[in-house]
Amino acid sequence: MISNKMKGLVATSSVIRAMFEEGKRLSDIYGEENVFDFSLGNPNVAPPENIKIEINKILNETAPKLVHGYMNNSGYEDVRSKIADFLNEKHDVNISSGNIVMTCGAAGGLNILLKTLLNPDDEVIVFAPFFGEYKNYVNNFDGKLVVVSTDIDNFEPDMQGLKDKINSKTKAIIINSPNNPTGVVYSEEVIQNLAKVLYNKEEELGISIYLIADEPYREIVYDNVFVPYILKYYKNSFIGYSYSKSLSLPGERIGYVVANTNMDDFEDIMTSLNVANRILGFVNAPSLFQRVIANCLDAEVDVSIYKRNRDILYSHLIKIGFKCVKPQGAFYLFIRTPIADDKKFCEDAKQFNLLLVAGSAFGCPGHARLSYCIDYKRIQNSLPAFDKLAKLYEDK
Amino acid sequence: MISNKMKGLVATSSVIRAMFEEGKRLSDIYGEENVFDFSLGNPNVAPPENIKIEINKILNETAPKLVHGYMNNSGYEDVRSKIADFLNEKHDVNISSGNIVMTCGAAGGLNILLKTLLNPDDEVIVFAPFFGEYKNYVNNFDGKLVVVSTDIDNFEPDMQGLKDKINSKTKAIIINSPNNPTGVVYSEEVIQNLAKVLYNKEEELGISIYLIADEPYREIVYDNVFVPYILKYYKNSFIGYSYSKSLSLPGERIGYVVANTNMDDFEDIMTSLNVANRILGFVNAPSLFQRVIANCLDAEVDVSIYKRNRDILYSHLIKIGFKCVKPQGAFYLFIRTPIADDKKFCEDAKQFNLLLVAGSAFGCPGHARLSYCIDYKRIQNSLPAFDKLAKLYEDK
Repeated sequence: MISNKMKGLVATSSVIRAMFEEGKRLSDIYGEENVFDFSLGNPNVAPPENIKIEINKILNETAPKLVHGYMNNSGYEDVRSKIADFLNEKHDVNISSGNIVMTCGAAGGLNILLKTLLNPDDEVIVFAPFFGEYKNYVNNFDGKLVVVSTDIDNFEPDMQGLKDKINSKTKAIIINSPNNPTGVVYSEEVIQNLAKVLYNKEEELGISIYLIADEPYREIVYDNVFVPYILKYYKNSFIGYSYSKSLSLPGERIGYVVANTNMDDFEDIMTSLNVANRILGFVNAPSLFQRVIANCLDAEVDVSIYKRNRDILYSHLIKIGFKCVKPQGAFYLFIRTPIADDKKFCEDAKQFNLLLVAGSAFGCPGHARLSYCIDYKRIQNSLPAFDKLAKLYEDK
Repeated sequence: MISNKMKGLVATSSVIRAMFEEGKRLSDIYGEENVFDFSLGNPNVAPPENIKIEINKILNETAPKLVHGYMNNSGYEDVRSKIADFLNEKHDVNISSGNIVMTCGAAGGLNILLKTLLNPDDEVIVFAPFFGEYKNYVNNFDGKLVVVSTDIDNFEPDMQGLKDKINSKTKAIIINSPNNPTGVVYSEEVIQNLAKVLYNKEEELGISIYLIADEPYREIVYDNVFVPYILKYYKNSFIGYSYSKSLSLPGERIGYVVANTNMDDFEDIMTSLNVANRILGFVNAPSLFQRVIANCLDAEVDVSIYKRNRDILYSHLIKIGFKCVKPQGAFYLFIRTPIADDKKFCEDAKQFNLLLVAGSAFGCPGHARLSYCIDYKRIQNSLPAFDKLAKLYEDK
């Protein structure tokens, strides 16, 4: 009786649940501490202490109606102003509260963007490997996901492939840097090249092509790598931001969409984002946490914890022969699987109590994703299991 | 450039904004205290003191990862269990955590339900007057909203009209009791008759018809009126619940969907609701407030404040000649307009600084809605304005 669109998704969901059950089964047999679950992207670094302090302050100092009540569907005006000021100073842009819609995380943001932009059969381009949910988000609005490959030696977009796939049905491109699942950060050169391709295609085809940067991992970067701020490079650009990872608040569903001021149809788009937030059922981003993040714009989690995890895991995997691009951000490693069949590889890994996600889930077979947002000690203990896994294929 | 579906909605939104601007204009001229804004449904009664206490307790006693982290997309297992136990005891039903999905308010709940149930062109029946957002929610999934009238002397559903409109494309009925905009509560007899019609039609047509009770106002009732618990009367039934009004937390977006255990395709439906919560971009209901409401299941706002508002406004309006069904719940009065053109009536009302919403917005012309969730003093002060408004039409 469930809708046709949901039938396939329910079947997939059963597969994911089966994997989760397998993890529990292994824990029951070998002890939870001997199962190495690298499958989930749930931040393990604590939120900044400020969060708790600010919640108390807000509850004590602000009228309940201004903490828990309805506001404009785009979010509290003063919260959006504070964010705009912060972004102007940090990234040298020129935006105001009117450029911002507070959203239920980046997932909510991407959905109101696609609701606003897509007619049925409009095309949205992503670069493989990509976060699997993009396919579902585009499908929510009957759009068509078009996949462009990347160079698997650095996971940079194939610009010729991009040019080939853009046509009059192309409405948007979604990029995700720092990237899930590769941890790659696009350099300024990559962004400049991307912008050039899009500007040329807009002119050639006489259409607007919107660039959406999905940036939940913006603050999780290592070795002072520079993450270009997309609004400065391309006119028709949006950023979907989230505090899920930057402040370790993924359950609270708080983020925002920011749109470039001079984009095509700016006024209609901002009104539509506001209405889409309402009618898709979000209504508004959770109100208390709008106020909390507005008071914590400078706060950050301890990224060095993730960096230490990356370093031990990356260097060990390279040492024992795995191939992997060194991640500059996020908390994922995307290794090349020693056999072509990445699903079999992940099955094999379970023998050693290693839970990984096959690259196929990200549109990139022949790879596997490891989430290293887990305890350092657990990663240390997992290293012999990776040794055994590597050995499995040595003679083949 | 925005999508065709959004174009019309953006136009409508401009009309609403114009009304909001008009309110501000009147406030600037006459002083905010002399403008009587009966247009918004934003609760003015404070949340229970418990809310603040429980937030502090949770932040002090629970690990951040279990307060702000990801959990199952359906919500924390222990929170859902507590709600199930509470509902079992309160309503003598027999449900468990597996019947419940925590949602971003009732709006989020209705959207995941319709995503789960609707194929394009499937029909969803509502009774006029109805909450205008139902049309948008159904349209999100390309369903067709079918409107059945009510008896305007009591706003009870026209059962013959319902029978006439049910056909093989009918997938769901949405009811809303206590009702926005009428304040009417459906009696047990109405619910029994409704269930009978639906059971007969299911058998006659060989289909499942799902009954969705949208219940954000369940706890806002007066004079000990009984609100039948829908799961006890009809097998294929859901309740979309929200704490927005019952605990005055509308900005926090916290509620749940509960499904009847023995409904058709129960397992698939619960899995689909879980997946829909994820892919529509909600991911999960805000995590801290899941824990907060689980600790406040017995809490309630002071409904007597709303009752006092209802009483003064209702008795005065009746005294000066307006026709209106006495509301038994929610915080709205739905008056019959003395002229057929309800939009003109609401325009006329602005002369006296009265802001009302035309019944047409609820699919019921010839009426106007007054939200009385505002200060008692303001209502008292507004009474002479209603006198003047009534006089306008006396000689006509």
